[in-house]
Amino acid sequence: MAVYTEVDDDALEAFLAEYDIGALTSYKGIAEGVENSNYYLETDRGRYILTLYEKRVSPQDLPFFIGLMEHLAARGIPCPTPVRARDGNALRMLCGRPAAIVTFLIGVWQRKVRIEHCAPLGEALARLHAAGRDYAGHRRNNLSLPGWRPLFEKCAPRAHEVQTGLAGEIEAELAFLEKNWPSGLPAGVIHADLFPDNVFFLGDTVSGIIDFYFACNDFLAYDAAVCVNAWCFESDGSYNVTKARALIGAYHKARPLSADERKALPLLLRGGALRFLLTRLHDWLFRADGALVTPHNPLEYYRKLRFHQGVKRPGELGIAA
Amino acid sequence: MAVYTEVDDDALEAFLAEYDIGALTSYKGIAEGVENSNYYLETDRGRYILTLYEKRVSPQDLPFFIGLMEHLAARGIPCPTPVRARDGNALRMLCGRPAAIVTFLIGVWQRKVRIEHCAPLGEALARLHAAGRDYAGHRRNNLSLPGWRPLFEKCAPRAHEVQTGLAGEIEAELAFLEKNWPSGLPAGVIHADLFPDNVFFLGDTVSGIIDFYFACNDFLAYDAAVCVNAWCFESDGSYNVTKARALIGAYHKARPLSADERKALPLLLRGGALRFLLTRLHDWLFRADGALVTPHNPLEYYRKLRFHQGVKRPGELGIAA
Repeated sequence: MAVYTEVDDDALEAFLAEYDIGALTSYKGIAEGVENSNYYLETDRGRYILTLYEKRVSPQDLPFFIGLMEHLAARGIPCPTPVRARDGNALRMLCGRPAAIVTFLIGVWQRKVRIEHCAPLGEALARLHAAGRDYAGHRRNNLSLPGWRPLFEKCAPRAHEVQTGLAGEIEAELAFLEKNWPSGLPAGVIHADLFPDNVFFLGDTVSGIIDFYFACNDFLAYDAAVCVNAWCFESDGSYNVTKARALIGAYHKARPLSADERKALPLLLRGGALRFLLTRLHDWLFRADGALVTPHNPLEYYRKLRFHQGVKRPGELGIAA
Repeated sequence: MAVYTEVDDDALEAFLAEYDIGALTSYKGIAEGVENSNYYLETDRGRYILTLYEKRVSPQDLPFFIGLMEHLAARGIPCPTPVRARDGNALRMLCGRPAAIVTFLIGVWQRKVRIEHCAPLGEALARLHAAGRDYAGHRRNNLSLPGWRPLFEKCAPRAHEVQTGLAGEIEAELAFLEKNWPSGLPAGVIHADLFPDNVFFLGDTVSGIIDFYFACNDFLAYDAAVCVNAWCFESDGSYNVTKARALIGAYHKARPLSADERKALPLLLRGGALRFLLTRLHDWLFRADGALVTPHNPLEYYRKLRFHQGVKRPGELGIAA
């Protein structure tokens, strides 16, 4: 929760002069977003978000992300619409960083997920997948199965600092997933990080989906598994089967899951849990001193993984085929 | 630049139910404000700022601050207007902290002060002083002369960590000011912290004055001196006499400074510099580990103090009587 780059008046003025969005009336740093610097930007014509992409986002990936938001917004997905400057470019430089202006979306993200949010989320995710089907861009998921082992190998020597025996448990899970990971499932553009803070609601309606900076091509059902892990566990670590049933049920209604996809879900849930366990473990062990962001506790996802490992029948997950 | 208190949905919903401001459509933490947590709050009826008062603000002072903003706003000063809940109270509790909703002000604070901003600022300050004249509230300035020595005594044993010989220099200045500090100057409610980040502009017009949480009763001309120190030095440490002339000239035009006030200004500038040197030194030496805010470098105000100590004639300051 931070603004990493302070944009001064002269730089902002010169930057905005490239756009046809009216005269600036307000701009304020927003204490949200872990990876980039975000500003609320208001002109006499509208409200926007200005994002400066910090080092964790690869500049060569930005055209994929910007293009994807344009593509989805044009198909009615409530995601930010990139605003093009007068020269037609939506991606520019500001204070030495790539930067873009996107439309402001109303709505509030849910600090406490309620059951009523899960079906709208599932439906919105399915619509996003359907709308992304004909997007021409392509980006490999570098945080999917092939990316997990290098991450693990970097963390393994220090994993005991977080919990005794953790490296061995991850190693075993990784070997299991490498052996059993599905192939040939329906694939397309996925959000890959659709946590509650990336979904705005107005009442029980999804009014905004943001933060496409992990989006990539992968199994669509894997995206649903990431959502189940993020939305359907309670803060005490228990799995809420009713939430999962609502989420997956609504997803299935909007984009029917194939028999193969439903069969693969328990495995995808384990993989999704391992992915966030590994990245959080990495950020926890290798966090920079003086970082403005408190890393997430990796053990939250260790417990989710343990839950999924213990599941005997898909019925326990609320996602029975 | 931080949000210290995360407000969850249930707590916010219950809080907003006490107000008659419409249905929530957006809320986002703002990465501005050093002392308190601030949220941008939007409803279908308007835009607001929600502030949660963190520990550095004394709860018993809040009625003074809230009442002052109401008083000034009613007299046309462009400051936030506290919004009263249905029971008539503008000050409530949220997440265990005192909290208030105020109106949102458009405008942008100047990261780089330009000469054109100094006259509007001076005039706005004079108007603020005039409008505050009949405010019934009273709050002692605990960061004026009598408060400086205790602060100094706490910092003195460690002042050398910042600069060799610093304690001795501060001691000498403090003794000088204790001996020469003026009395009997026109007094009233002052802002006491009118730095550039607390003043919003639209073009060259002051559209907002915020952050009244150091406001108190003291010499009006001392407030002007604090502004000159904050607005009229360049980033290379040089004093911009043209800016000071514009600021003080416009102030004088809107509220004529008496001969005594003008004569006292060089001393008030030294006192104002020492005040911020001391508080910054304190925050620098005693900052909490893990604090979300980077303390200001105290030496910036040491250099301003040194400049004022070296002034031979008021003419050098651009504020000649």
